This record gives sequence, C-alpha cells and structure tokens, in this order.
Amino acid sequence: MKELEDRIRNEGTVKAGNVLKVDAFLNHQCDVTLFDHMGAEWARLFAGKRIDKILTIEASGIGIACCAARHFGNVPVVFAKKAQSINLDGEQYMTTVYSFTKRQEFPIIVSKRFLSPGEHVLLIDDFLANGKAMHGLLDLCAAAGVTVEGIGIAVEKGFQGGGDELRARGYAVESLAIVKSMDARTGNIEFA
Amino acid sequence: MKELEDRIRNEGTVKAGNVLKVDAFLNHQCDVTLFDHMGAEWARLFAGKRIDKILTIEASGIGIACCAARHFGNVPVVFAKKAQSINLDGEQYMTTVYSFTKRQEFPIIVSKRFLSPGEHVLLIDDFLANGKAMHGLLDLCAAAGVTVEGIGIAVEKGFQGGGDELRARGYAVESLAIVKSMDARTGNIEFA
Repeated sequence: MKELEDRIRNEGTVKAGNVLKVDAFLNHQCDVTLFDHMGAEWARLFAGKRIDKILTIEASGIGIACCAARHFGNVPVVFAKKAQSINLDGEQYMTTVYSFTKRQEFPIIVSKRFLSPGEHVLLIDDFLANGKAMHGLLDLCAAAGVTVEGIGIAVEKGFQGGGDELRARGYAVESLAIVKSMDARTGNIEFA
Repeated sequence: MKELEDRIRNEGTVKAGNVLKVDAFLNHQCDVTLFDHMGAEWARLFAGKRIDKILTIEASGIGIACCAARHFGNVPVVFAKKAQSINLDGEQYMTTVYSFTKRQEFPIIVSKRFLSPGEHVLLIDDFLANGKAMHGLLDLCAAAGVTVEGIGIAVEKGFQGGGDELRARGYAVESLAIVKSMDARTGNIEFA
C-alpha cells in the first residue's frame, strides 16, 4: 500500500536493534484517515471471506481494528488483554507471549464469551516481526475453535521471518507494507 | 445518551466492589457502531470548540477515541502509554496513576513530540470513577502547555465523585451515561 509505505519512508525512523519507529501516525499518535484507508485495503484484500469478528491485541492494534471494522460491516472488535484485571473474570482463553519491544513475557487473555466455536475471525495488528504476538492470538483462536480467515498487518518486518512462517503454515497474511531491509545508520528503508 | 444507557442496563453487570462490567460492547469486545454514535454525540456536545487533537489512554480509550475522531474532522488521536517500551524514547511527559481495576500504580507517558504548547485538546476515556486516570492525563496536558477544551467520558460512576470534582474545577465534562447508583446484589443500575 503506497500510502503507508510513503508515510513510513517520510516519517518513520530506524533505530538500533531492528526497531522501526512509526509512532507519529501508527502506534502512539494515530492518523485515523490513514487507518480508514488501511481498513478499506484489507476489505479489498479479504473480499469474499466471511468475517464475523475482528480480533486484535492491546494496545496499538485497537485503533486500527476499530477503524477497519467499518469496512467489514461494523463487525465487533475483540482485543486480547495483556494483564489480569478485576474486570476480567469467568472463563478465559489465556496464553503467554514474549514482547520484542517490552522485553518481557506477558499473558494475553480473551474472555470465552467473546470468541465462540464456529465464528470466522480476521486477526489485525500494527506490527509483525518474528510473529510471537500473532502466534499467541492464533493459540487463543485454536483454543476457542474459531476459523481464522486471515491476518491483516500494517507493517511487516519481512527480514524477521514471522510473516513467511505464517504463510508457509497456510495463513492468508496481508501486510500493507513489508520492510525488506532497514539501516539504522543511514535511515534507509527498503520495501518488498 | 439513551442508547448507551440501554446497553449498560441490558448487557452490563454489577460486581462486588463497585465494579461495572461493560466488556460485551465497550472495553473488551467493542461495538464500533455504538462508538460511532458516541463520537457523534460528543461532537454535538462540544460543538463550536476548537479541537486540534484527541488525547486518551491505553487500552480501552483508544478504539472509542479513534471512532470519535471522525466526528471532529479526523484530528489525530494520541494515546498515553502505560509502560516504558523501547519504542518510547526522547523527551517525554510522564506521571503516575493508581488503577482501580488493576490495583497498582503505573506510569503514563506521552512523547513530547505529540503534545505541543498552544494545541487545543479533547480528552476521551471509557470510564470515569474517582478520576485518577483523568488527573494523570490533565497533569500531562499541563506540563505540555495545551488547552483542555473538554473531557468526553463514556460511563461515569457518578457516586465515586471524580466527575463532579472535575466540573467544580471548571472542566467541561460530558459523560454519555452517569451511573447514580448500582447494586451488585440485585443487579439494579440507576442513571442520573
């Protein structure tokens, strides 16, 4: 998606340790016009699939998923939570995920009331790197008995392999920008 | 807002310890049609005010704020982050907040790049109870030198006093549903 690639090229910054900062428009400050266009593009890419629900993970996926939902007939958005809360009770699906950006393991949790066997789900997230968060969401989906119709990603760091590994397992992964390489020294970003 | 009150009455549950669960449509599973109507209602209530940006706090405020932004000319949404991350660097506004639902103190952080002196900001969040999270956001706004044009809340627990305290300080607080009382034993919820 050229619009997203242009924004990454113009406003993204590459930091040491394979970090790509896109916080000016994607995951700290949110450009809702861009999010709307991203939702329209996923709707085009996943056209014809039955999508009953969008599943994402807090925090950065939520705004993107809520804007995208409009393009899928206003289906509900469920976000997996990253910590226990007294607001979470009853039966839950839970697994643990290692965060690249926070450098720690954390639980991810979805109430069983919001993923039901037989539902068809689209997974959406802001980033896909090594795929650990996405594997966590897929574990929850498997436990719930839902059908994963596709995976919509804003920015895939292609060189970290998570996207290709999911595609090899048969998942329909649609990343709107795939970074082939990036260089913290020069700031150069190349797209696939 | 009758639509929101009806949803709370029909789908909300009251738990011991002053907990109101509305996770079926507001803060775990998200009804984006409802969020859109909430945004339209805040746009009506804050009509005539200059809003350059919406500020919220992760995680549950993000989806609501992103849907509301459409009704304010697609202004950017900035969400305060609750933990340090290697994605956060440079100059930051930071304060600490005690969470009622998570029962612990946590930092809230906004990059200085995304709140600039002279900007006019609308604060949005899903819940207002004792007001601790909102005070944290107001601290960040004061540090940044932005003008707070208003505070849009989905559900105010009026009996916990945070909303009235903010109104007494002169803030324009618009809560779309104000719970006057609720009873964990009977499940009864009364609105102001």
